[in-house]
Amino acid sequence: MNFINKLNAAWAANDSLLCVGLDPDMDRLPAQFRGTPDGIFRFCTEIIDATADLACAFKPQIAYFAALGAEGQLERISAYLRHRHPHIPLILDSKRGDIGATAKQYAREAYDRYGADAVTVSPYMGADSVEPYMEWQRGVIVLCRTSNPGGSDLQFLEVNGKPLYQHVAQLVADKWNSNGQCALVVGATFPEEIRAVRAIVGDMPLLIPGIGAQGGDIEATVRAGRTDAGTGMMINSSRAILYAAPQAGEDFAQAARRVAEETRQAINAHR
Amino acid sequence: MNFINKLNAAWAANDSLLCVGLDPDMDRLPAQFRGTPDGIFRFCTEIIDATADLACAFKPQIAYFAALGAEGQLERISAYLRHRHPHIPLILDSKRGDIGATAKQYAREAYDRYGADAVTVSPYMGADSVEPYMEWQRGVIVLCRTSNPGGSDLQFLEVNGKPLYQHVAQLVADKWNSNGQCALVVGATFPEEIRAVRAIVGDMPLLIPGIGAQGGDIEATVRAGRTDAGTGMMINSSRAILYAAPQAGEDFAQAARRVAEETRQAINAHR
Repeated sequence: MNFINKLNAAWAANDSLLCVGLDPDMDRLPAQFRGTPDGIFRFCTEIIDATADLACAFKPQIAYFAALGAEGQLERISAYLRHRHPHIPLILDSKRGDIGATAKQYAREAYDRYGADAVTVSPYMGADSVEPYMEWQRGVIVLCRTSNPGGSDLQFLEVNGKPLYQHVAQLVADKWNSNGQCALVVGATFPEEIRAVRAIVGDMPLLIPGIGAQGGDIEATVRAGRTDAGTGMMINSSRAILYAAPQAGEDFAQAARRVAEETRQAINAHR
Repeated sequence: MNFINKLNAAWAANDSLLCVGLDPDMDRLPAQFRGTPDGIFRFCTEIIDATADLACAFKPQIAYFAALGAEGQLERISAYLRHRHPHIPLILDSKRGDIGATAKQYAREAYDRYGADAVTVSPYMGADSVEPYMEWQRGVIVLCRTSNPGGSDLQFLEVNGKPLYQHVAQLVADKWNSNGQCALVVGATFPEEIRAVRAIVGDMPLLIPGIGAQGGDIEATVRAGRTDAGTGMMINSSRAILYAAPQAGEDFAQAARRVAEETRQAINAHR
């Protein structure tokens, strides 16, 4: 099943627009998981099992694995997700950006090695940094408007009366998405910009980081980004779920589940 | 030694502006190296030994390793280079682009895991996608103008009367390079644009892909990009050297050495 169809099915099956980000920071893992690569696998798969009926996608951030030389654990986690929860899409967040033969190697990494349903990519090198991914019939999620302070350095530069990020949205909508495989990254900290992107791209899915630990406003985000069907978004939360402070009687996975459920409900209240 | 000083020393010691790219495509390796991860290590280290006195840097492209799950071989190659040819800088070509805590994980990957002297990064997410690298006192090589057809999709958009890539050059020169650790990627296929970037960034080093297999003009590139000292560039060639067709009596490493020497001389003829 292609990424967009799989995402649509997961939105419906779990009544959820919540994407759970997997950023396993060794310094923040519960004590029983620290210090060994296998601990990363056990932590992430416990989080997956605790939240798989509440999420529309899981998004591992490859940097946390790469820094530790733990790509093998990411392979195991990906295989586990495909086996145990095959209806939930896997988004590899690697923000790759390269061209031609090199981009094809990155596509192999994402789709063949990790079995990802979609991968994040940077638009800076243009169409031929996205085109090689299309061959796989999976998803390509292009950076458009990011939620960090420096995001405006380039993305907000004015080009023909419009900020650069809107040109990126237009390029993807008009040209790069010819096979219907694309989505966009738009940060939650700028709801008016989510609205502008939504107006440009129709029903294209948006991956929206920035709620939870990064402080984005859920209501404003959902109102700005929802499609007529009340979907169209993968609203990501990573640290607020992974490292939720357990309340009385909870362990880390129960705390993660509680925060995931609260977040899902907070999103659904405004769909 | 920091990256810029090490690069200056390598330019002088080898009288060379040639950067040798390491893109080990399993389908193109000589038969004796195919099919095993160890073959990648042996191929790359034979190329390194055959060209280390002719190069100012080596630049492994991480996508080729990532596609095969061969990061362990890249660790071995990096360690080999540091041990055998410690005066030649290692540039990790990974074009990472992320922010804050995630960018810091990528910096750990590049500098701690692989021991890279410099790493390529994408500017699309702005200053806070570059800042986390600064802590390491190594090199950060920012994508500016790339040599691929789609490079113009974003980089040539006009912002205040100037193309976007010139804004990136200005941003790096004026703000991001406050510690003197930055360089820029500027493709060889547009010599006039190399000239424009050189005028903006003073003596900042430029990493210039696009000669060799990609067809860039060496004379025009060197005349456009050289500094007053006749240096300032890492002119990259990957496939033309790695997969040079052996002439009578040569093996692949001798052929690579011959092409590297020819390229070094062709560059030096115009410095």
